[in-house]
Amino acid sequence: MKNSYGSSVSVTLFGESHGPEIGIVIDGLAPGIEIDKNYIDKKLSLRRPQGKISTARQEADEYRIVSGAFEGKTTGTALTILIPNQDTRSKDYSATKDLARPGHADFTADEKYHGCQDYRGGGHFSGRITAPVVAAGAICQQILEKKGIVVATHIKSIAGIEDKSFNPLCPETEGLGDKYFAVLDESKEAEMTLAIEKAAEEMNSVGGTLETAVTGLPAGLGEPWFDSVESMLSHAIFGIPAVKGIEFGMGFGFADMKGSEANDNYRMENGRVVTATNNNGGINGGITNGMPVIFKTAIKPTPSIAMAQDTIDFKKKENAVIELKGRHDPCIVHRARAVVDAITAIVLCDMLAQRFGTDYLR
Amino acid sequence: MKNSYGSSVSVTLFGESHGPEIGIVIDGLAPGIEIDKNYIDKKLSLRRPQGKISTARQEADEYRIVSGAFEGKTTGTALTILIPNQDTRSKDYSATKDLARPGHADFTADEKYHGCQDYRGGGHFSGRITAPVVAAGAICQQILEKKGIVVATHIKSIAGIEDKSFNPLCPETEGLGDKYFAVLDESKEAEMTLAIEKAAEEMNSVGGTLETAVTGLPAGLGEPWFDSVESMLSHAIFGIPAVKGIEFGMGFGFADMKGSEANDNYRMENGRVVTATNNNGGINGGITNGMPVIFKTAIKPTPSIAMAQDTIDFKKKENAVIELKGRHDPCIVHRARAVVDAITAIVLCDMLAQRFGTDYLR
Amino acid sequence: MKNSYGSSVSVTLFGESHGPEIGIVIDGLAPGIEIDKNYIDKKLSLRRPQGKISTARQEADEYRIVSGAFEGKTTGTALTILIPNQDTRSKDYSATKDLARPGHADFTADEKYHGCQDYRGGGHFSGRITAPVVAAGAICQQILEKKGIVVATHIKSIAGIEDKSFNPLCPETEGLGDKYFAVLDESKEAEMTLAIEKAAEEMNSVGGTLETAVTGLPAGLGEPWFDSVESMLSHAIFGIPAVKGIEFGMGFGFADMKGSEANDNYRMENGRVVTATNNNGGINGGITNGMPVIFKTAIKPTPSIAMAQDTIDFKKKENAVIELKGRHDPCIVHRARAVVDAITAIVLCDMLAQRFGTDYLR
Amino acid sequence: MKNSYGSSVSVTLFGESHGPEIGIVIDGLAPGIEIDKNYIDKKLSLRRPQGKISTARQEADEYRIVSGAFEGKTTGTALTILIPNQDTRSKDYSATKDLARPGHADFTADEKYHGCQDYRGGGHFSGRITAPVVAAGAICQQILEKKGIVVATHIKSIAGIEDKSFNPLCPETEGLGDKYFAVLDESKEAEMTLAIEKAAEEMNSVGGTLETAVTGLPAGLGEPWFDSVESMLSHAIFGIPAVKGIEFGMGFGFADMKGSEANDNYRMENGRVVTATNNNGGINGGITNGMPVIFKTAIKPTPSIAMAQDTIDFKKKENAVIELKGRHDPCIVHRARAVVDAITAIVLCDMLAQRFGTDYLR
Repeated sequence: MKNSYGSSVSVTLFGESHGPEIGIVIDGLAPGIEIDKNYIDKKLSLRRPQGKISTARQEADEYRIVSGAFEGKTTGTALTILIPNQDTRSKDYSATKDLARPGHADFTADEKYHGCQDYRGGGHFSGRITAPVVAAGAICQQILEKKGIVVATHIKSIAGIEDKSFNPLCPETEGLGDKYFAVLDESKEAEMTLAIEKAAEEMNSVGGTLETAVTGLPAGLGEPWFDSVESMLSHAIFGIPAVKGIEFGMGFGFADMKGSEANDNYRMENGRVVTATNNNGGINGGITNGMPVIFKTAIKPTPSIAMAQDTIDFKKKENAVIELKGRHDPCIVHRARAVVDAITAIVLCDMLAQRFGTDYLR
Repeated sequence: MKNSYGSSVSVTLFGESHGPEIGIVIDGLAPGIEIDKNYIDKKLSLRRPQGKISTARQEADEYRIVSGAFEGKTTGTALTILIPNQDTRSKDYSATKDLARPGHADFTADEKYHGCQDYRGGGHFSGRITAPVVAAGAICQQILEKKGIVVATHIKSIAGIEDKSFNPLCPETEGLGDKYFAVLDESKEAEMTLAIEKAAEEMNSVGGTLETAVTGLPAGLGEPWFDSVESMLSHAIFGIPAVKGIEFGMGFGFADMKGSEANDNYRMENGRVVTATNNNGGINGGITNGMPVIFKTAIKPTPSIAMAQDTIDFKKKENAVIELKGRHDPCIVHRARAVVDAITAIVLCDMLAQRFGTDYLR
Repeated sequence: MKNSYGSSVSVTLFGESHGPEIGIVIDGLAPGIEIDKNYIDKKLSLRRPQGKISTARQEADEYRIVSGAFEGKTTGTALTILIPNQDTRSKDYSATKDLARPGHADFTADEKYHGCQDYRGGGHFSGRITAPVVAAGAICQQILEKKGIVVATHIKSIAGIEDKSFNPLCPETEGLGDKYFAVLDESKEAEMTLAIEKAAEEMNSVGGTLETAVTGLPAGLGEPWFDSVESMLSHAIFGIPAVKGIEFGMGFGFADMKGSEANDNYRMENGRVVTATNNNGGINGGITNGMPVIFKTAIKPTPSIAMAQDTIDFKKKENAVIELKGRHDPCIVHRARAVVDAITAIVLCDMLAQRFGTDYLR
Repeated sequence: MKNSYGSSVSVTLFGESHGPEIGIVIDGLAPGIEIDKNYIDKKLSLRRPQGKISTARQEADEYRIVSGAFEGKTTGTALTILIPNQDTRSKDYSATKDLARPGHADFTADEKYHGCQDYRGGGHFSGRITAPVVAAGAICQQILEKKGIVVATHIKSIAGIEDKSFNPLCPETEGLGDKYFAVLDESKEAEMTLAIEKAAEEMNSVGGTLETAVTGLPAGLGEPWFDSVESMLSHAIFGIPAVKGIEFGMGFGFADMKGSEANDNYRMENGRVVTATNNNGGINGGITNGMPVIFKTAIKPTPSIAMAQDTIDFKKKENAVIELKGRHDPCIVHRARAVVDAITAIVLCDMLAQRFGTDYLR
């Protein structure tokens, strides 16, 4: 199930960067959920390029829901979202179609698909395909919010400039979902933006990290072993192009800690079980403990850069130099934020539906 | 499929720390593969506790293969490995059975299983259950080695003491599979061992990181989106208890890099496509590019520590203090190494069988 | 995965009878397969209503392939087919929307979807949704034919009028795929057609059976137990609306046979292993033996009939009488033929890709 | 997932006829379910050969539950049942190991497994492997019965001798689960038994049909398209060796009916929705309607017969004659009954857990 993810709630993704339409099928949603189009539009706008820090390709993302919705509500059957591609410049890609863009999937796609892949704009590998993911994820976020579950991601760092971290016991998610450039410490926005613009000027790009918090999840979600919360989330999140690392709670920071520092002591607080610290990111033994789920994601610098790069011509099997002409993002960290939120919401809807049944999310 | 993983080659895991037997079913192996019991024994010995740096629980791991093998070879049908539990001291656990060990799954298991879980020795959540994983993984490693594919993991750090890193273009895997304490720079062994012993004396524990290299994989393995190599590996590896982070290639290090530094330029070398650097860990767009696959895993300090800890009694719903009596590992990083190798081999056999068919691995 | 089927090659189905578009995503096809649009059109025409023996709803089935194809060939990524609904008369359904049409899914959908289903024209349960299945199946049939594998179904009976059976050793598949009304004994067409027209006049409907043969399959395909050829085919074929029975080889006829009659003796024939009879329909122990795979499918009479029927109003929870106004098929056996062929081809592509790898079907 | 079935509740099957142990892992059961060993023993006894109408192989089926149960109850983790093979006579098989027993999987297994299969007693294809299925199914039947859901199967026919059919509106399931030779009309037992004994004397075998009823299921279970109740049940039931056909409700009988006869009119009865007839076997559009689910299964005559049969030697690729020496069943219809019940219960537990959550079945 290559382009599909999930069991009780599942998604199937399709489309190419320069194809006529891209889309997603989301199956297993409970019936009767009101679809708030403004909410979806808002989330799509968070993913859309803006200003000098993003690609110049402008897509209105005028999506259509062609199945699974009736009279403004989900029907409970497979819901399909289609988004047309409008602002494509395929000729940018034809001259270099046999040159492997370093850091991109051109060569690996050629090996896998024996030269039959749609090369234009990265084809099926393009970040463009995350637009329908965000639309489907927005529906899942609405569903979760009605259950008191909030998914929120901020930019933890860009180009080495660090935002502050979430308070792991009580993450500052309020208002985060409304920001285009989502930082906790707003003084960092200008600094990060400048670094991105500078990279663009230098025909280069920068990477960063995202930090995600999920509040309101019940304890007891997830499984030991292969369907741990970490397993399910990481599986889906590594599907996002450019993600190269994920860590839960203290993550790699655990490596230098002692057990006595790392363990989160349990405490009773107003009759509720809590932990005094949240180093484990709300997950013990693969299962939620009722504290906020916290994880960080590493996003590599956009591989599309304008400066000349050494590479190969994979048809001729010889060395070559590539100079990219397309329109590119000097940084995708701020745009990837909406995608991480979306994927997280989809995974959690699936896990909740598996645990509590398909009607639970009504 | 909670305790199962995989599609063309799949595993199903079962058992409890103090139950009579634990085991694994591995399904989809090609027929006719010779089962080298010495090889399996060797790999099991790498996971087995040794000396003062590990738990005192001694298990011979005298496994039996009760199905799927005939006359020393795989039959192609579901292969089942059973391992008896012998050295259990269940009474160590009865006094504290309602106290949530911090960092452990006692509380989350109680929430999930409504108090019906086998609490002895961590029950189904115990690291003990990784023994059959290592046995099954050993069969997969043998299969891969016949194809020229080597999976090897070393201890990258313990308690903040760092081993050197693999050369990402040509990882030093030679002989690594024979070492019990697998470091590249052997001068680090004494230092790390000392740190573990010191933690044990202090009734504490330490964490660390593992670095894994896979060489010999063909280019073109994996899928864009949800079945990327990163997705498949991370899903399975987060199933291992105590793993809290994973990163591929430069991983979180990408966050501070520029695109021009991060991109791996392609080059022709003796008629073969290679990359000049290997920051992407052998994977572009979720698909192998023929370079070594490299990833790091974060292992948290063993949560079982002997010092008194604040916690709750989850039956009485009140605060409590716990002092653990069982036998515990002051560090599991060196033992987890064999488990990461095993899981990696299982995932890759599955991916190769999906791509090239079930007979490919004969 | 409710609307999905398959593993190495999978389909995901979506749409409603009166929604804007219906469609299918077919994932896992090998790259580089030429898509013969005439072939797809031909197969779609076999499913399309014609004459007095079918519904008056006329749909041109002007499908678009919006992903997974490039320059006339498959790319190897998820291929999506969209078909618009054009000739809908939704008002036919609004008056009776709370009345459960007997034999239909109105009541069960209402129970499952809590009243949120799209009731118009049967919504997601409509036979209309089989159009994209036929389009996707046509691509799979093309693929199989290049491998020398032919899938062919004929009308075995309608309204009790029997066509002759396939010769199970050497089924008469030649030319069958070109016939709209696919009978082996052409003298039966007029008789069956008359029976259908008579049922239509009487505001009634008739059922029948289909017999399918698959030739050219290699021996050794399928699995013991849960992924037997019978399991995989029956799972998918019972997804077709109105199918209520399936039997392989002699099927229910085995009940009255002796072992000595039922067993198919193996014989060598020109160096090839064959069976002297083919009572088992080419499958032993769930696995193909190289002989033609033969099975029969029971299709119930169309539940939509024009005469008045007793039923309930499921909103008011009271007895009622329903008189259907929509346009209906007095028989769907002849149209279901193309759907059975399509589903069979999809299942076999999946099984072949699982066994021999995803590139096998290039 | 070749030897696995199910999603929320799943089973994984392993073992060979003459291996040391056979078994099953059942995963996803709710925690806290009391395991009634007498109930399991009872169900195993229904599958066990008795008297002259069955094989002489005697197996005590002394099963062990080695995981997933604690203090007499399910824990909620993977539950494993192991059954030793004791009464094996492997030498019966060595002389004829390269001769394909007609009607058996010897040849197809050899093609699939390249000669590496365990040939003794049919290996993994043996009906012996259904013993753990019955044990796991017994646990599922207990679970369902606590929910008021009863699964019951009777012998509908053997050797052409017909038992009466279930009343489809109110099937006579009372006491059926206690009978070893489960017929509704007890006068048929002697007649059927005689026919089996006669076949045995003639070194031959006979087939038959089973009819299954499930009462107490809620309306709204199942899915349109690929996860219809018919799809799910048929998939699993065709995993049982010797099953060659399945039909729901009127099944193949629908072929000769008119829509007006076939449709089940809905009626209100004491405030409950019922149907006046139950031709559809309790399923409309793939979803339960609250009426009894009724289906029939065709069981072919045991392929193992003592008389000489023409066949091939698949090693030498030449014609041969085979005379079987093992101990065989002249009929397996009466024994298959317990297996059909077991599989049906497993499938329904899975479907209920998917719909209502994993805790629903506590």
